[in-house]
Amino acid sequence: MLDLYYGVGTCALAVHIVLEEAGADYKAHCLDMKANQQNSPDYLAINPKGRVPALVTDRGVLTETPALLVFVAQSFPKANLVPLNDPFAFAEVQSFNSYLCSTVHIFHSHKMRGARWASDEASFEDMKRKVPENMRAGIAMIESKMLRGPWVMGETYTICDPYLFTIGNWAKADGVDLAEFPKMTAHRERMKQRPAVQKALDQETA
Amino acid sequence: MLDLYYGVGTCALAVHIVLEEAGADYKAHCLDMKANQQNSPDYLAINPKGRVPALVTDRGVLTETPALLVFVAQSFPKANLVPLNDPFAFAEVQSFNSYLCSTVHIFHSHKMRGARWASDEASFEDMKRKVPENMRAGIAMIESKMLRGPWVMGETYTICDPYLFTIGNWAKADGVDLAEFPKMTAHRERMKQRPAVQKALDQETA
Repeated sequence: MLDLYYGVGTCALAVHIVLEEAGADYKAHCLDMKANQQNSPDYLAINPKGRVPALVTDRGVLTETPALLVFVAQSFPKANLVPLNDPFAFAEVQSFNSYLCSTVHIFHSHKMRGARWASDEASFEDMKRKVPENMRAGIAMIESKMLRGPWVMGETYTICDPYLFTIGNWAKADGVDLAEFPKMTAHRERMKQRPAVQKALDQETA
Repeated sequence: MLDLYYGVGTCALAVHIVLEEAGADYKAHCLDMKANQQNSPDYLAINPKGRVPALVTDRGVLTETPALLVFVAQSFPKANLVPLNDPFAFAEVQSFNSYLCSTVHIFHSHKMRGARWASDEASFEDMKRKVPENMRAGIAMIESKMLRGPWVMGETYTICDPYLFTIGNWAKADGVDLAEFPKMTAHRERMKQRPAVQKALDQETA
């Protein structure tokens, strides 16, 4: 039994989808991010970083999306969600997810979380203005150099696909028109047809 | 044969150390980051993201530090640098490295790379002022919750150790006095005694 802690509209959706794809026995717990529940004493006892996602396992708590995606995929090998036995192919998966985590997600975070990195209201506004340009550049890099099609890694669906779908969900509100990116758009349509994606989204919007 | 592209003082040092630890056959190529060589046409043909590190393998180019660390460790299993066959222990390694990559490194980047996320000189200055506080908070989290000792994961040296050492190298210039953090300081002394660390540092400062 696994317990996933998530917030609506966060990157935790990627892990949520992968838990569904894997057929895992899990329970999803929604934190009220608007009420800052991720920094409540109860949640900080689970994840002292005050972030989502967190995954409670029978051996302890795990955090950080790229780590959780591999953990779930490796724990449920029958779902074949990561090419763990091929070091190069696995590194390609990890490289893609790391780019989402440390570049594209960080672009996005500068819209609402500027106070993490600066102190003045004018800086926050300056950061917000740059978000559409940055998110567009990140998605353009993915479209032109990284997304092979039909899935991120080509013919085989992997843990990269739910993560890209999750970050793609932020594009419109971040000022990026995905119609400009046909491979990204087709990927999103393919994702929406997967039962695991529908189940995770239904749970998060229930 | 592997080719590592790095810049002096960058996170590529972590991969450089791990190549030495693994006993890999590799050549290290230094980019002149002050001259923006990472955005030269020759290098962009290797890594279109214009960042270091990049690792050229006989199957293609790999990028992103957390991915490269696992790739090298997995490619040289005799060095025993990552607990790949234990999903939970492996996830702990990945979680640690992901925190360095997407939180602590990003704190650091706001000192010199503010133009990635904002446009005004005043915002850059505001970001710079917050770097000591953020770096200190990141290192305090590692010291209190993550670094087990003697190595990051406890008794066994892993790919987390060179990565933590690399980011620790930035602390002083980022306004953090590591004397405040005894576990971190002892870890750094232990690291400096390893021949692999000395060799990588010697190459980068030659």
